[in-house]
Amino acid sequence: METEQKKFLLTAKKSENITEWYTQVIVNSEFVDYSAVSGMMVYRPDSYFAWDTIKEATDRMFKEVGVQDVYFPLFIPERFLTKESEHVKGFSPEVAWITHAGQSELSERLAVRPTSETIMYDSFSRWVRSWRDLPIKFNIWASVVRWEFKHPTPLLRSREFLWNEGHSAYASFEEAEAERKVILDIYEKILKDYLALPGVRGRKTDSEKFAGAIASYSIEHLMPDGWVLQGPDHHSDGQNFAKAFDIKFLDKDGTKKYVFQNTYAISTRELGAMVLTHGDDKGLVLPPKLARIQIVLVPIYNELKKEEVLRYSRSVNESLNKSFRTYLDDRDEYSPGWKYNEWEMKGVPVRLEIGQREVDSVSVTAVRRDTGKKETVKLDQLGQFITSLLEDIHTNLYTKALKFLESHTYSVSSYDDLKKLVGSGIVQSPWCGSDKCEAKVKEETGAKITNLPSDVQDKAVGQKCIYCGEEAKFIANFAKSY
Amino acid sequence: METEQKKFLLTAKKSENITEWYTQVIVNSEFVDYSAVSGMMVYRPDSYFAWDTIKEATDRMFKEVGVQDVYFPLFIPERFLTKESEHVKGFSPEVAWITHAGQSELSERLAVRPTSETIMYDSFSRWVRSWRDLPIKFNIWASVVRWEFKHPTPLLRSREFLWNEGHSAYASFEEAEAERKVILDIYEKILKDYLALPGVRGRKTDSEKFAGAIASYSIEHLMPDGWVLQGPDHHSDGQNFAKAFDIKFLDKDGTKKYVFQNTYAISTRELGAMVLTHGDDKGLVLPPKLARIQIVLVPIYNELKKEEVLRYSRSVNESLNKSFRTYLDDRDEYSPGWKYNEWEMKGVPVRLEIGQREVDSVSVTAVRRDTGKKETVKLDQLGQFITSLLEDIHTNLYTKALKFLESHTYSVSSYDDLKKLVGSGIVQSPWCGSDKCEAKVKEETGAKITNLPSDVQDKAVGQKCIYCGEEAKFIANFAKSY
Repeated sequence: METEQKKFLLTAKKSENITEWYTQVIVNSEFVDYSAVSGMMVYRPDSYFAWDTIKEATDRMFKEVGVQDVYFPLFIPERFLTKESEHVKGFSPEVAWITHAGQSELSERLAVRPTSETIMYDSFSRWVRSWRDLPIKFNIWASVVRWEFKHPTPLLRSREFLWNEGHSAYASFEEAEAERKVILDIYEKILKDYLALPGVRGRKTDSEKFAGAIASYSIEHLMPDGWVLQGPDHHSDGQNFAKAFDIKFLDKDGTKKYVFQNTYAISTRELGAMVLTHGDDKGLVLPPKLARIQIVLVPIYNELKKEEVLRYSRSVNESLNKSFRTYLDDRDEYSPGWKYNEWEMKGVPVRLEIGQREVDSVSVTAVRRDTGKKETVKLDQLGQFITSLLEDIHTNLYTKALKFLESHTYSVSSYDDLKKLVGSGIVQSPWCGSDKCEAKVKEETGAKITNLPSDVQDKAVGQKCIYCGEEAKFIANFAKSY
Repeated sequence: METEQKKFLLTAKKSENITEWYTQVIVNSEFVDYSAVSGMMVYRPDSYFAWDTIKEATDRMFKEVGVQDVYFPLFIPERFLTKESEHVKGFSPEVAWITHAGQSELSERLAVRPTSETIMYDSFSRWVRSWRDLPIKFNIWASVVRWEFKHPTPLLRSREFLWNEGHSAYASFEEAEAERKVILDIYEKILKDYLALPGVRGRKTDSEKFAGAIASYSIEHLMPDGWVLQGPDHHSDGQNFAKAFDIKFLDKDGTKKYVFQNTYAISTRELGAMVLTHGDDKGLVLPPKLARIQIVLVPIYNELKKEEVLRYSRSVNESLNKSFRTYLDDRDEYSPGWKYNEWEMKGVPVRLEIGQREVDSVSVTAVRRDTGKKETVKLDQLGQFITSLLEDIHTNLYTKALKFLESHTYSVSSYDDLKKLVGSGIVQSPWCGSDKCEAKVKEETGAKITNLPSDVQDKAVGQKCIYCGEEAKFIANFAKSY
């Protein structure tokens, strides 16, 4: 028993060593596990459930705006990857290469999908003939491999991760541009309604944009350690790939034109953002919609009252599991206290304690995971109570995260202030737009521009660049970044 | 226009050259496409929709019986694959190998997932401690790669395909065995209720079982050319992998024991079985539940009446698309006849023709894809009519396929009869159970034992083996096989 108890203890504290805390909490909670392949991880039932729920919800919203799911090969011929010069530069350092099949050496190396632009657009070039074939709004749910040589961290920086890849082709630049708001609105809704995560939407700088795109837009998350983690993104590819892959259509006016394209993605990295944001020193804290088990029932008894308490617990469980995902923990060999620790570690949103007192008063004692608050609830009000409790937990998680984001977003106009605040949050500063100033700030402070936040760009007018003092063109979010 | 019309024509007839017909129909209907990677294919929206529907329905049923979804790495270290000797023999001839990442050569080759037993069971060995950790009932929805050197055919024999992989671990052999019926019942229900496909359930012979299993059970489909195609399967692994990967648990009696394991799968190959079974010389015929578009509305008008017919068509479409997946084909540049051909090729279950006559009589003309039967339906009865029409189409497809299976399943007791019938269906024959007789029949007739059908095994009693004349132990299904 001793060894099993140990695994539900965290030795690291989130506020003291978030890196060590993160590693302990994701593994000890049985959320994910390391695998025998260095840098690749295992999604155990709780993490896969959370991802699958995000996937289903996102997919439903994609379909509402006319996106269709497809699937493209896992392997990509080397000659395709090299067709768009920026693209290959971005990806080839971390591509996993197939060289042999069975006993035979292949005549051309094949890349394991790091992203699918090139293999998809090869098909697009054969499928697109006339304006009638446009727009194409395709999506694939896939696993991708990027053999990162930096220190891999499960969920945050893994050599394989799961994501959606949206790929579209439009007849005009304007139509292509209009897609961005639609998709980023969907992502923002998923983040807020499912992951309880706020974010900052904005354009990436040219030095930070996607390899092959003309512009990238992202939603960035602020983590509790004051560092920023990149969330979902949407890339405007312009006609770069259309030209490289010869995707042309006959327009209504009788002329041949190249299409305009976009790509977009949300990945399992969001689960890492969720753990970092909501977790505490007892373990995971899961937003109720993403919890495979939403309510755990723990019966408390001595041998004398065992049957009565268990019978009552079972009937409570049966009435709840029609509407909620519940689990009755009737394991005999563990004490209630041990069970509390385990389910708190696993982040289950609500615990119901059921002892003789509860049986006698026809009630249960409900404990919420996010605040630890206890409440006794009469059985005839339990369903309604749980419904609003789960909503309340979700809202509380989101509100806390949003407050943290807002209170750790600083607006400064001097480089000294930026330097003081870097590492403790997002530092919004006027910027002239030059790569050189961006690079210098990064070199001197370790902070990069995470994005140019959409909602405050009007404030750049009349301000001076934080680094060179020239006229500012943008308000840039400087931060240390995961 | 001429070139676009051509692509919706089939030059091959199903009854004359089913191989050529199949290739034409799956590509010309835009169901799937070839990709630039030899032997790997693209799932276009219609095929992916069908697969996703199968996946969702199967997953729902899995969850009802306690199966949990997880995800394991795409890559598998070479040393794992070689741990179970039968397993590695079965897979290594067709494994795609990663040897390099970026510019670096890996110290150990990694296999791209051909199946996940070994990487999963490595984790099981760390996760399983006591009887409390059992049973494990895990499933992954994944893409797998098997670099077949036989002629690849999209959906039927593709170098990458999509499937579920169920992997379980039980404390006892009996519990492990009990799982088979539960899972094969689910698969049979999916085949019948979604794909409208019947099948024959039974055990595989030892020479045909899964690499590493102690016994395999399959559902086999009979195709219209009289050949058999293997469908979903369930494998009893016994303790083979448990011993190779050291998966032991402390049982209630205080002793350490190896677990008993199973694996099971359904794959995108079912879509190939569906195309082969239901398709005709006009193209695909999709079972209504798997059709991305269930009903296409084709307005028919001259310039004079155009607006009136279109307005009416739109209102019919709006009333239907709340309950069904509909598409109003209002493309001006194609004739109604051209549209009929296209939607028939794509296998859309119901076509509604709407012209002035229909407007005047407040009705539509409904044409069903499976029989071509036309019927005029009053608008106020349309919803109910369509509901039962879709059900009727599904039932008709299933009934036709079942009749074909039944009428092409022959029971024989002489080898001469077997030889005469081989290639035209399933030949049920008494068999002594020896590998030698099985191999001899295969050598001489080209027919293998597809499985030992569960429902007729009692008939073996008192019969003689079709080949050697010794006492029969089984009734075996001999057939030519895909």
